[in-house]
Amino acid sequence: MIANTPPPPYYAVIFSTLRTEIDKGYLETARHMEELAKQQEGYLGIESVRTDLGVTISYWKSLDAITKWKHNAQHKLAREKGRKLWYKAYKLRICKVERDYDFNK
Amino acid sequence: MIANTPPPPYYAVIFSTLRTEIDKGYLETARHMEELAKQQEGYLGIESVRTDLGVTISYWKSLDAITKWKHNAQHKLAREKGRKLWYKAYKLRICKVERDYDFNK
Repeated sequence: MIANTPPPPYYAVIFSTLRTEIDKGYLETARHMEELAKQQEGYLGIESVRTDLGVTISYWKSLDAITKWKHNAQHKLAREKGRKLWYKAYKLRICKVERDYDFNK
Repeated sequence: MIANTPPPPYYAVIFSTLRTEIDKGYLETARHMEELAKQQEGYLGIESVRTDLGVTISYWKSLDAITKWKHNAQHKLAREKGRKLWYKAYKLRICKVERDYDFNK
């Protein structure tokens, strides 16, 4: 559940979303995009939580990997549907993870 | 709910957590830490969601602001309690936000 990422530096895409009330195709597409992301080169992991606010963070080896995923045709189509149907508002942040710390009981 | 951050660059602290079953003082402390964070210099915003996984992202003006918040005495005490009582596992990631994109309907 907590993404098991390698030592920094690596990249994070923070996708913070507020949903509309339209569910049509949303869950299937969200799941399919997660599966598809996992198959991309440079994918490192994902963390996703939603209540009224949704936060999905995907982790990537490089900016280049993020750009390639951005240009994936199925992903592009899903983003268009997202803007048209599922999301009232979102913010996408591209970040460089510089340091990280673990705790495990 | 989506943090209204200024144009990049700025910093994000991604705190991904798995909870124990111990609730004692957790909610009060979490709320108090959020209030306290808001009063710190360089604080820009927060996004927080929890289901079985918890993700709290706080945004900061600089690494220096993050370091000062890390050394805040009340925050230190809360982190110690977190390791002792509330968290089974966590990962903390310090990130530089390099780019961001907004969508609003």
